Order: sequence, then C-alpha cells, then structure tokens
Amino acid sequence: MDNMHAAVLYGIDDLRYEEYSRPVPKDNEVLIRITSNGLCGSDIHFYKEGRLGPFIVNEPYIPGHEASGIVVEAGKSVRNGLKTGDRVVVEPGIPCRKCTYCKSGRYNLCKDVVFLSAPPINGTFSDYVAIPSDFAHSIPESVSNEMGAMVEPSSVAIQAFDRLNIQAGNSLTILGAGPIGLITLISAKAYGLSEIFVVDTVAGRLNAAKKLGAQFTVDNTEGNAVHEIGGLTKGSGTKYVIDTTGSSKACALAPIIAEVGGKIALVGWPELSDFNYPVEKIIEKELDIVGINRYANTFPKAISMLASGQLDLSPVISHRFSFNEVSKAFAYASNNKISTLKIMINHKE
Amino acid sequence: MDNMHAAVLYGIDDLRYEEYSRPVPKDNEVLIRITSNGLCGSDIHFYKEGRLGPFIVNEPYIPGHEASGIVVEAGKSVRNGLKTGDRVVVEPGIPCRKCTYCKSGRYNLCKDVVFLSAPPINGTFSDYVAIPSDFAHSIPESVSNEMGAMVEPSSVAIQAFDRLNIQAGNSLTILGAGPIGLITLISAKAYGLSEIFVVDTVAGRLNAAKKLGAQFTVDNTEGNAVHEIGGLTKGSGTKYVIDTTGSSKACALAPIIAEVGGKIALVGWPELSDFNYPVEKIIEKELDIVGINRYANTFPKAISMLASGQLDLSPVISHRFSFNEVSKAFAYASNNKISTLKIMINHKE
Amino acid sequence: MDNMHAAVLYGIDDLRYEEYSRPVPKDNEVLIRITSNGLCGSDIHFYKEGRLGPFIVNEPYIPGHEASGIVVEAGKSVRNGLKTGDRVVVEPGIPCRKCTYCKSGRYNLCKDVVFLSAPPINGTFSDYVAIPSDFAHSIPESVSNEMGAMVEPSSVAIQAFDRLNIQAGNSLTILGAGPIGLITLISAKAYGLSEIFVVDTVAGRLNAAKKLGAQFTVDNTEGNAVHEIGGLTKGSGTKYVIDTTGSSKACALAPIIAEVGGKIALVGWPELSDFNYPVEKIIEKELDIVGINRYANTFPKAISMLASGQLDLSPVISHRFSFNEVSKAFAYASNNKISTLKIMINHKE
Amino acid sequence: MDNMHAAVLYGIDDLRYEEYSRPVPKDNEVLIRITSNGLCGSDIHFYKEGRLGPFIVNEPYIPGHEASGIVVEAGKSVRNGLKTGDRVVVEPGIPCRKCTYCKSGRYNLCKDVVFLSAPPINGTFSDYVAIPSDFAHSIPESVSNEMGAMVEPSSVAIQAFDRLNIQAGNSLTILGAGPIGLITLISAKAYGLSEIFVVDTVAGRLNAAKKLGAQFTVDNTEGNAVHEIGGLTKGSGTKYVIDTTGSSKACALAPIIAEVGGKIALVGWPELSDFNYPVEKIIEKELDIVGINRYANTFPKAISMLASGQLDLSPVISHRFSFNEVSKAFAYASNNKISTLKIMINHKE
Repeated sequence: MDNMHAAVLYGIDDLRYEEYSRPVPKDNEVLIRITSNGLCGSDIHFYKEGRLGPFIVNEPYIPGHEASGIVVEAGKSVRNGLKTGDRVVVEPGIPCRKCTYCKSGRYNLCKDVVFLSAPPINGTFSDYVAIPSDFAHSIPESVSNEMGAMVEPSSVAIQAFDRLNIQAGNSLTILGAGPIGLITLISAKAYGLSEIFVVDTVAGRLNAAKKLGAQFTVDNTEGNAVHEIGGLTKGSGTKYVIDTTGSSKACALAPIIAEVGGKIALVGWPELSDFNYPVEKIIEKELDIVGINRYANTFPKAISMLASGQLDLSPVISHRFSFNEVSKAFAYASNNKISTLKIMINHKE
Repeated sequence: MDNMHAAVLYGIDDLRYEEYSRPVPKDNEVLIRITSNGLCGSDIHFYKEGRLGPFIVNEPYIPGHEASGIVVEAGKSVRNGLKTGDRVVVEPGIPCRKCTYCKSGRYNLCKDVVFLSAPPINGTFSDYVAIPSDFAHSIPESVSNEMGAMVEPSSVAIQAFDRLNIQAGNSLTILGAGPIGLITLISAKAYGLSEIFVVDTVAGRLNAAKKLGAQFTVDNTEGNAVHEIGGLTKGSGTKYVIDTTGSSKACALAPIIAEVGGKIALVGWPELSDFNYPVEKIIEKELDIVGINRYANTFPKAISMLASGQLDLSPVISHRFSFNEVSKAFAYASNNKISTLKIMINHKE
Repeated sequence: MDNMHAAVLYGIDDLRYEEYSRPVPKDNEVLIRITSNGLCGSDIHFYKEGRLGPFIVNEPYIPGHEASGIVVEAGKSVRNGLKTGDRVVVEPGIPCRKCTYCKSGRYNLCKDVVFLSAPPINGTFSDYVAIPSDFAHSIPESVSNEMGAMVEPSSVAIQAFDRLNIQAGNSLTILGAGPIGLITLISAKAYGLSEIFVVDTVAGRLNAAKKLGAQFTVDNTEGNAVHEIGGLTKGSGTKYVIDTTGSSKACALAPIIAEVGGKIALVGWPELSDFNYPVEKIIEKELDIVGINRYANTFPKAISMLASGQLDLSPVISHRFSFNEVSKAFAYASNNKISTLKIMINHKE
Repeated sequence: MDNMHAAVLYGIDDLRYEEYSRPVPKDNEVLIRITSNGLCGSDIHFYKEGRLGPFIVNEPYIPGHEASGIVVEAGKSVRNGLKTGDRVVVEPGIPCRKCTYCKSGRYNLCKDVVFLSAPPINGTFSDYVAIPSDFAHSIPESVSNEMGAMVEPSSVAIQAFDRLNIQAGNSLTILGAGPIGLITLISAKAYGLSEIFVVDTVAGRLNAAKKLGAQFTVDNTEGNAVHEIGGLTKGSGTKYVIDTTGSSKACALAPIIAEVGGKIALVGWPELSDFNYPVEKIIEKELDIVGINRYANTFPKAISMLASGQLDLSPVISHRFSFNEVSKAFAYASNNKISTLKIMINHKE
C-alpha cells in the first residue's frame, strides 16, 4: 500500500504533518489527489477544544472538508464519466441514499450521513482522498483550485437562499461579517439582492463588507443595529435576514430586524442551545424562519456561478499556506481569529 | 336614523344590551342583519381586562367579529352581485387595498387594516353591520347561520395550513385543545392529515379531541408530551406542529416535537413577548417556522368546505345564547373558561 | 433453486401461468411473497400490442407492478427494520440513487430507473418478488392486501396533488372517470377539494363518479363539457384540472376549463405525441401546467391515508380473480375495457 | 382647464402630435409630468393594424404605457408620501382592488383592470398623466428617466422569473432576441442564471445577445436550435426556457429544449391561438409550464435592481426621439422592426 502525507490531529493543539496510508478507492469511488483545502472554523474548534457538538476527537484523525483536487483513479463501477485527470470538488457529506430524507432531496438531514472530518471520519487535509464518484463534482478550467475549495463554504449561503426561496430585487440583512457572512454577501449580490446591510462588531470586517459591495454596514458594538437599520429602511426593516454569527444575542435580533412578512435563515450555530427569543415578533409580523444545516444539491449551482464569473469568492481568502506548513496554518488561525478571513492551504503541483 | 340593539362594552365587566344607532351603508358597502355571532377569546379579554395587546377600551364600543347575517341593503356602487336577501359571512378586517401587502396577497399584514371589534372600531354584536361588499362572503343554503359564524375562527387554521404548504398524508401535533385547537383538528382531518396528536392539560378537552378524531391525545400535565409523542412516532416526532395554546411554555415545545425537516406554525399568542426558545433545534433539524397573524383569502375556502360537508364544525359549539342574553353569555364565558368551547349567540329570526 | 408460479407474457395474447425460478434476494433486498396484484392498463397494452411507448416485449417476461405481499426473507445488509412476516407494498421503480434527480427528490425522473414490469424487467405477477428493502413499504394491519395493491395507482393522484401544490377548499375538474380518474376523485375528496367535476363519455363511469362523491358529472359525448362546466361555475371554470384520459382531444380541453390563474396536471398519456393545443389560453389566463410521470415519495403518504381510513379505494375494484386465473383476468380486461374498473388478482393465503 | 401636448392615434398610420386637455387628478391620484416613454411593440400593432387581440381603436386615443415622470400635483387623499417633485415610474394597469385576484396578489388577472393605452383608455404619450398614487412608484436619483421608462418592459421578465421560482446557478434558454428577449437576458444574469442560451434567426440580434453576455447564441434559421442546444448541454437541454418570440413555431420548441424536470415560461403571445404542441414532452419530462400575462408586484423589485446598478438596461435602447417627433418615431419603428431594439421618446426638460 502506498503512503502519502496527511495532517493528523492527535489532540488539542497537536496537529502533525506526517506519513499516512493512502486510501484505496472502492468500486464506486474515485481517488482524488488534493490540490487546495480551505480551513474551516470547525477544524479550529477540534484543534483547540478537541470537540464540537456531539463530535469528539477520541483518536488521531484527519480534519478538513473544503477541498478540490484531481482524479487519479476511478473505481470500476464509476459511471458518471469521471476519469483520471478530471479536476473536481469534494462534497464531504455522504448520505445513506435510502432513507426518506435521501429520497426526498434533503440528504443533508440523513441521520446516517458520513461527513468527512467529523471524527472519527478522516477529512481532506491529506494528499489523497477517496469518495463516491457522485460526490466528486467536476469543475471546468475557469474555476481555479482555490475557488473549487470555496464551493463547500459557499454552499451554505446557497442552501440559505434556496430554502428562503429568495427573490431578487429585495433587501437583506446579514448578521456577521466573518468568512460565511462575507461569502453570503458576495453570493447575495450574485443572486440579485439589491439592498444589503451587513452587521458586525469588528471594524475590519465591516470594511471588508463595504469593499465587497454591502450598501450599508452597521457596527453593532453599542447594540444599535436595530435602530440604525430601522432608520435606513424608513422603519420597515429588511425582507430577508440571514444570521451567520454563532452568537445567541445576535441571532435574537433577526425577528426584530425583519420587515413585516419577512423571512429569516439561521445559518450560524449560536453558542447556547436555547435562549431568550422574541417569538411574539414571528407571530405579529407573520415571519418565516428556516434553519440551515449544511446543504444538499448546492455544489453544481455554486460551480456553475463560479465558472460564469458571477461569483468571485477570491476576496475572502486572506492567507495562504503550503500543505507542509499545515500545522503553522492551524496555529495561525487559532491565534488570529478576528483578523483572518479564509485561510487556503495549497498542495504543491 | 333607525335604531337597533347592540352589545356595548362600557368597561370591565360592563357589557350592556341597549339601543344603538343603526349604521348606514356607504356606496360600496352592504348593510347586514346579523343572525349569529361566535364569542371569541379576545372579546372576553376586552370584557375582563379592558385591553388586549395594543388595543384599549377607552370609550364604549361594540365587540364581536365572528358573524353571519343577511344582506338588507346594498350601496349603489356594489358590483359583486350581492343583493337583499343574500346570506353572508362577515370578514372583519378591512385593509387599505393600496400598500405592498394588500397588493401582494397578504392584506392581513396591512398596517392600516380596520378590524371590526378592535377598539374603537365597532364589531358585530349588534342587529346590523355595514361593511364593504367584497368583505361580505355569500354562503349557500347548505351552510347554516351558525356554521357561517364559524368561518372566521376556522380561517386561522386554514391560514396555518396554507402558510405551511401542508401536504396530506403526513403527521401533525396540535398543541392546545381549546376552540382553535379543536377547529384546527377538524380542519386538519378535512385536509387529509392522517396522524394527528393533540396535546393539552385538561382532560375534558382531550376527550373532545379524541371524539373529534385525534388519533392520539397526550396529557401534558406532567410535562411529558415530548416523551410520549417520541414514543408514539419511533422517536421521530411529527412532520407538522401547530401551536394554538397561548402559553410560552407550550410554544417552546414545538421545535422539540417536530421531526427533522418538519414545519411549525405559531397561531396562539404566548403570554410573554420573548422567552427561552430552543433555537438550536431549528438549525439542527432544518425546521421551518411560520407565524400566523389572522388570515387572508381564506373565507371562500372555508365556506366551500363547509358547503360540501367536508368540514363540520358544529361539535365545537358547546353553548348557545339568544342575542338579548349577550351579557349573560359574556359573564358565563369568563367564569367557565375551561369547560366552554365555542359559545354561539343567535339573533331571533 | 426453488421454483414458484408466475404469469409469463410470451407475446400478444399469450400470457401463461407457469413455473418460474424464484428470485434470490441480494444483500440489500427483501424477498416478498405476493398477496395481491392490481391489473394496470399498461399491462393490457403489453398483452394486446406487445409494446408501450419505447418498451417492447422481445422475450418472455412477467408483467405487473401494483402489488402487496409479505416479507419472507431479508438480505443481510437490510437495515430499515423489515423482517420476515412484515406486510409490505412494492414500489416498482428502483432508481440509480446517484444522479441529480435521485439526489434532489425527483427519483422518478432518473434515466436509469429500473421499473418492474417494463420489459425486459420482470414485474410482480408471480408468487415471489425481490426488491431493495427501501422500496418495500411497511403497511399496518388496518390496510388490507388489496388496499396495499392500490397504493401504486393512487400514487399517481398524489403525485399530481403534490406537484400542483394543491390547496383544500378549491374546485377541480377531473377529465376521465376510468380507474385513475376515480382514484383521483376519491383522493381529491380526502385532500379537501370541495367542488369536484368529473367528465367522461361513458354513462356507467359517470354514475360511478357520482356515487363516489363527485358534486357534478358531465357527459362529454356531445362535446359540451366546457359549456356545462362554464355554466355551473358562473363562467369561471375550476381552479384545478387533472387530465387522466389518455385522449389528446380531452387533454386539449384543460386550458379552456381551467379558471384564470388556474393549474393543470397532465396525468394520462395522450395517444398522440403532439397535437393542436390552446397555448394562448395558458398565457391569457396565466395558467400553470405540470406534467406527471409516475411518482416519487408518495407511497408513505398513500399508506398513511389508507391506514387512517381517510382514503377508501375499495369502490374502484370491480372484479377479482385468483392468481391461477391470471390469464383469464387479462383476457377479461382486454375484452371489457369500458365496463371494468380495477381488476384485483389475489394469491391464495 | 389647462392643455398639453399628446400623441393621438386617429387610425392606422395616423398618429398626431397635438393639443389635448390636461387630465385633472382625482383625490387619490397624482398628476405626473412625463419625462420619458418607451415605444412598445403593442403600440406599433395599434398604429399599423388598428387593433390587438380584443382591443380595437374605435376612436382617437393616446397610446403608450412605459413611462417615467415627475409628480406635479397630489390629490388630497394621497397618503403614500408622494409629493410634488418626486420622480416616479407609471405602472399602467389599475385593477379593481376587490376581486379574488386583486386580494390574492395576482391583480394582473383582475378582469376589470384598466390598462393605460388599451383603447379606449388613454396611455402615456402625453405631457401629463394622472394615476392612483400607489401605481406611481418612486425612483431614486440613481435611476435615470430612461431607465425608469424601462421598468415596465423589464417587469415582464421579472414576472417570469417570479412565477418560475427561479434559482440562480442554473441554465436558461431564451427564445427570441428582440427587446423583451434581451431584457430577459440582462435580467437573467442579474438573477444569477449562469449559463444562458439565446435563440433567434436574426444575426444582428444574436450579436447583441452575445455582447450582452449570453454564453451561447444559436441561429435557428435552419431550424437546428434543438440540435445545437442538445450538443452544448450533453443532450440534457436547459433547466429553464423562456419564450419571448410571439411565434407559434418557436413556442413549440420549448418543451423539447427543456431538460427533464425543467420549467418553461410563455411570455410572447404566439400569432396563432392554438397550434401543434409537443404535449407528450410535458408528461414524459415532468415539465412545469407557466403562462405570463403582464405582471404584479414587480415594479419595486425592478426599481431596486436598477438603483443598485445590478440591472443596466441601457444597451437595449437603440434609438431616441424627442416627444414632438413622436409620429416620426412610430413611423421609424414600424418600418425598421428588425433592426430596432427599444426606441425611447424623451420630453424636453
């Protein structure tokens, strides 16, 4: 069996770039040589805390799930046309294909989903990954390796837009201007949302949002986001609100900021499991609220919009590392949470 | 000007059946001789507390908004075919017809809506009412006066089903077995929902729900509704949950009872404006939540289902009074909140 | 290898009840002992013409795809809980599970679907059938073997209602009162459609529709369906129209019968591939038209409604045969097309 | 009473720029001084043929319905904030506000709609127009007079996208590259559609489409659009097809070009009321077809996207005339149908 390099997480603050046995693709799988990997906030959670939600790092494993690469081998029953040399994006959640969720188009809700990088399942921070061929999505020449690695995080924004049944020409507030918030902003503009407010408490992030085309940025350090957005919208609020913050306090602002008859998508996982929430506003304003838990059927759409140039996510990449510096990248990310946006880790060609 | 009798609320516990000037219909209005009036929980709120939400009884006014009657006069610009002798149901919320909500089919969200019985606007507890002709909905012979008066409360259930985009053949939990809960139950069966759970803490109400066809009734006095419904659904919960309770504690159960990918409608106004809510469940299960604030475009559907016999709401009527006993009816309702379902007040022919 | 009996179609008019090798379930399959089988119009097409659309009977094969039965063996990787003795319904179209249609909830559109009874794939007219366990849907005691066999044809109606996003309390015209038309009628009533018109040219079928609860039946022998429905609806037509006829002439009536803003579902395959169609009406009335090609995710809903008693399809069964008389049943059906509704073929216990 | 200039159509080829009495606004109306007017194909129909569909020019009247202007007077019951000096766009179809269509958000289907420029109702080719204030939509400084006049034709594209429930990142074929086809193309890109095919038979129009960002343009002069699009999409066709041609032959291509499970919008009125149509494809592919008849609730969205710069419709304007040359403009348009795109007629400031 051949070997490869991988980033193996042994425990808190202990990520090692080392030799690992190369995966062997099953009949329905393709083996992919990885070219680029984005570093996700959840990777950092496992790195700093050894756990996230129900998932615990009990044994060494490989993190990472935002990856692009090149097919180097196709199993003998692969029939979707993928072949050696094809450039692909990895969709990291492999569902059971048999339950009612899988059959009804919501395979992200499959309770038996196998998600690359959710311990103990190995992720994509390695030279090679093997996955079922239908979860390796072909990308054309016009989509770079790095943009391929951005398909996964942008999928969360697309899932929100899809579930909101979003209509262009309307207004949107994005709570949070971290990587997911900024990706949501760029995507929202490509979807035709025409008046976009971005709320955060970090000036640098708000500046980034402004540069990326937010019509209005609102600093909520003093807690006056509701007041300011009210003022800018003649008191009505915005049609859509998407919360990407991971803060229960910010999350609870959404029903107040949404206009009467508006719609809210909850993308970030608040730090608390339940908390004081203005439920009355949902009734009074006849709001719609949709939860977002990963994504389904979003990769082809993200790829198509990246290929056409309508979606350009490159401004979200703030730092780059080589794969052999992966430990350095994790350390950097965990020490500079606020000033970093997306960290991209590239393999040498 | 002719006179009539009306039930005039002068203040807390002070409802008087007395002479009142008969309304004169405007050109676009019909004058309706009222035949039946349902007593709504909100009427009792005004009667016992002098207020409800933002509405305050500052001067004597007429409550009531669940009414049927007979057209006795049509204004000269009435063009929808209504004429003297037509039996009709009163839709009590008259919107501005000009704002974006009115134009986009959500006229219940119009901020200038004039709602009969929201003080200081007079309601329907009188011999005659004048309303714009398009808010007087014709009923066929097969719909009785009392069933006509039930169209308004059943509209709330229909609004919930419409906004949930409900699909027959799925499961539903109804939180609360008061009048709205039971109307929701009966309507849900007519909509083809096939497995219905009803939760309450009052044995008599649960018995009523059982008689009306709930597959399962769950007594939540000990707080074990979640556990019981879990057991009855192999741990999955139900596809839909509709909260009709008006209790923040019950309302917060919905995201826990809903199955993964499920949908929740909030119909009852909890007694608190914000409270501890399991927001994480919305994200984890990718739930949809919709608020329900009155209704729009529901009256023709309710009437059609009553006319065809698919909807029989008569079991929800627990007590009947003559209109000249209206004060007695209010007193009875406020003293027997739990044992009364819908009280119907009929005018003499 | 064990044997069994099967109905093998050798060619036109040549169906033989004979010995056949019993299928052996794969690891993910269950082996089902068949109890009831409905006879479908498509079975008769193959029997009388040796072909249907692109499918040709080139070699002897087993027809049938409306079946219920009992699990007698479960493959070793079956994990959905099915076990020996469980009563089930066969969902006859097995998709690839990997293409964009399978992943997005429209697996009926999978181009690699394997459909039992589409030659050369064997169907269910045999003592035993082996299928993937997730396409064997468990039925409770309250659903009889025969009703189990009716789940497949009723799925077509449910697919139409789902794709129409049907709302209760509205009007519907059903074109055609054959088995699918009548099943659509019964189902429509269970879905809360409140004013149902049924159009056919055969008096006996219209009588059946009347007995099953159609508010209005219209004999179109003289071609005056449009005129009559217009008269009965004050000129507006009905909100929904579902064509089940298989006649291009009838199919072209739908846009004329539909009310302004109405919706049409095309269920029957007209005998012509293209024909004169009133396209202008689609634009003028802003109609929606949806095509229906089999079904996806409908079986659990049909079973749930049969189990609750909301759906009773037994009146559609007009004839019964024992399985060893299967050839006689096919002959009877092909000679008495108009007077037969659903023919049910039952296996001896 | 004050006078003004207007373009009055007396009969075929007889349009006169002449004095006309200035309209006086009713209480709920605003009086608008017109600044720009687009020339619509329907105006030319009336000019060349004296009729269009059910509408006939029986007496002199004023055409035009794509207009922007400035409020010069507001009736005394105007309450939406419009005041003298506000720049506005005219929405030309005023509905009854009382029928089920008006109340359910589809006011374009109101049978009593009063449509400016549908004879005998006067249109906007005049110095002043009076309309209900809620059909005068405010535009910000960033939207020019000409772009304001483009809101009406772009509304048709938005209506199509709304009714298709369009999702970004998918493919679209636009049949026809005339003004509506090109406006649809520009709008589709703003809505995030990522792979757009445009079909026409005129080289100049296809070149315009190419310049405006169509990924692929297809010359259907030889009738090989289906074949070419098939080749470019690996045989699948496109997710969406919008027909803007007004040709029954082109219209009938849509179900063939659409991919399995695709959706079609019919925008152009074919020259025939019924014609040979591939209905079987609708069933086989489970297509959705939606008719488009004008628009409802689209103006605010179009304005918002023009204001943000996401929609730039200026490339569609091919010619400009002064209002006093309006007769010349009509003559030019009717003699140069193929080489002209949108003709804009501007009033002097």
